Amino acid sequence: MPRLILVRHGQSQWNLENRFTGWWDVDLTAKGEEEALAAGRLLAEKGLLPTVAFTSLQTRAIKTLHLALEAAGRLWIPETKDWRLNERHYGGLTGLDKAETAAKHGDDQVKVWRRSFDIPPPVLDAGSEFDLGRDVRYAGIAIPSTESLKDTIARVLPYYESAIAPLLKGGDTVLVAAHGNSLRALVKHLSGISDDEITGLEIPTGQPIVYELDDALHAIERYYLSER
Amino acid sequence: MPRLILVRHGQSQWNLENRFTGWWDVDLTAKGEEEALAAGRLLAEKGLLPTVAFTSLQTRAIKTLHLALEAAGRLWIPETKDWRLNERHYGGLTGLDKAETAAKHGDDQVKVWRRSFDIPPPVLDAGSEFDLGRDVRYAGIAIPSTESLKDTIARVLPYYESAIAPLLKGGDTVLVAAHGNSLRALVKHLSGISDDEITGLEIPTGQPIVYELDDALHAIERYYLSER
Repeated sequence: MPRLILVRHGQSQWNLENRFTGWWDVDLTAKGEEEALAAGRLLAEKGLLPTVAFTSLQTRAIKTLHLALEAAGRLWIPETKDWRLNERHYGGLTGLDKAETAAKHGDDQVKVWRRSFDIPPPVLDAGSEFDLGRDVRYAGIAIPSTESLKDTIARVLPYYESAIAPLLKGGDTVLVAAHGNSLRALVKHLSGISDDEITGLEIPTGQPIVYELDDALHAIERYYLSER
Repeated sequence: MPRLILVRHGQSQWNLENRFTGWWDVDLTAKGEEEALAAGRLLAEKGLLPTVAFTSLQTRAIKTLHLALEAAGRLWIPETKDWRLNERHYGGLTGLDKAETAAKHGDDQVKVWRRSFDIPPPVLDAGSEFDLGRDVRYAGIAIPSTESLKDTIARVLPYYESAIAPLLKGGDTVLVAAHGNSLRALVKHLSGISDDEITGLEIPTGQPIVYELDDALHAIERYYLSER
């Protein structure tokens, strides 16, 4: 039976500071590293051992993957890093904390951006300190200047279909270590969640979510591994 | 100009204990982790930044790669893990320390195995505590029961030619984090070292060795990065 394991990266420095992060490359905190190790130990305890792994191009997700794989005794499985699993790009909100955002844009507007499915935040100004245009890791990629959740899904799902689904169909147990919104894209697709509901669905950090799938990759069951 | 960077893993627990390790999966010591980080910091300082990476299926090499890439700010580059970059398989010597080996086989015989190009140690007994036959990481692979350096080269070089050389020809800067003998295979090939001499060539741990290559991948220059 194909199985897909989703793990959101552990706490990052900007999770802690409550700042919009998006594509900015922020490291894990010590707590975030511990969450990643605990996720890997849980995989080993439950005997749910991935055979292949995917992650984004962002340090916090890659390190979560490596720490979890090491704790699970699976550091040796193939891993692929791809920008299409990156976090949603928060545009001009990048780097702002909640209070700064509310002061700059007003509470009601912030709620719209956080809860809307298809309204992106304002674009990131070119030349902003958070502009990634010169980051070689994104050379050759059309870096978004902002993204709605809908925009994020529009790059995650084709990647899932082309790179991940074929491995699941071949019987692999696939681990994806990624971000709140790139994982929402997968959960929305696999669990058939509506546009309205998906924006309110929280993906907890460091908690392996398991999908058991049939041969056509329809979800038979979704559960938190910690509850089994 | 194509460049190939070779890094031998940092000190492992059995390097410290002076035991034959081979394919047995021994972790880095704290000193070994520090060596890996220092190698990565050196890459960053010298501006010699890999664009793609290769390593073995062994924890000590994979962790060396990850620590070095993180310290170099390159955790996001593609990485491939392959058994053909594993350490030489030491057969029945696996797990023995120098004194045990000399007591069991005699000093002269041990010198032959250590210094010979094509005489392998005795095979590892099936059912030995160091038998990897049931390790899923090697499922589908004809695990050797022992290897000479010549045997090691016979699996490393075809992999270099098929997987690594095409990337070098395409202009990549390739980092290979591997083991004393799998790296000897590459150095022998690229520097044209004789069978007799290669067994005495020591590859220091955690010291990036750089090859500058021409378009046909002939070595123009080989140097320790720390000396530039």
